[in-house]
Amino acid sequence: MDIKFDDSGLIPAIIQDYVTGEVLMLAYMNEESYKKTLETGLTHFYSRSRKELWNKGATSGNFQYVKEISLDCDSDSLLIKVKQLGAACHTGEFSCFFKNQLKNEEGLNYKILYDIDEIIKDR
Amino acid sequence: MDIKFDDSGLIPAIIQDYVTGEVLMLAYMNEESYKKTLETGLTHFYSRSRKELWNKGATSGNFQYVKEISLDCDSDSLLIKVKQLGAACHTGEFSCFFKNQLKNEEGLNYKILYDIDEIIKDR
Repeated sequence: MDIKFDDSGLIPAIIQDYVTGEVLMLAYMNEESYKKTLETGLTHFYSRSRKELWNKGATSGNFQYVKEISLDCDSDSLLIKVKQLGAACHTGEFSCFFKNQLKNEEGLNYKILYDIDEIIKDR
Repeated sequence: MDIKFDDSGLIPAIIQDYVTGEVLMLAYMNEESYKKTLETGLTHFYSRSRKELWNKGATSGNFQYVKEISLDCDSDSLLIKVKQLGAACHTGEFSCFFKNQLKNEEGLNYKILYDIDEIIKDR
């Protein structure tokens, strides 16, 4: 297998909505969870907090059906396109990436940059 | 700042094409590179191999203009939407995720699953 797991035996997996391209979450897989994902066609991760195999959707019903898996050039991160049932996030949001830090469609919003910069300096 | 850097002072950042939604790469930021990204509007990362600040595009010209930054529910991964100049990958591919492991639009391709499973068993 080409996959390079890190020193902890993990690889980050980006989960992306197969239809819209929306990025839903980032989670980690070990070899066991990757293999379970391939075997079942449903995403399985390794929960770093619970330190165990995490069958995504097993309690919530919000399963992710795997449509495509790609490995990056360095073989140390995965991109997995899925059909998401329900919501990806445990908060009920469809995507986990709902905490906007910067929105800049027409050019940099320097006011926000400035505020964030100040917050960083205050840490 | 809400961002949770890991024990190594890093946070994974998913880089996504602002227009198409294509995921281009996954790289890591420390506080310095995140701050530089905000200040300049161009992605800066921390190179884990070279152990230094990595100004993406500085040598290749393939800069990434930051359009949007979001943090996930756990505050331990970033999603950054960019306008990509040239290619994101050092191989010349537009996206780093060009090594397809599984393609399954109409249902699982069990032949591939089987092959991969065999390879895993052989490791």
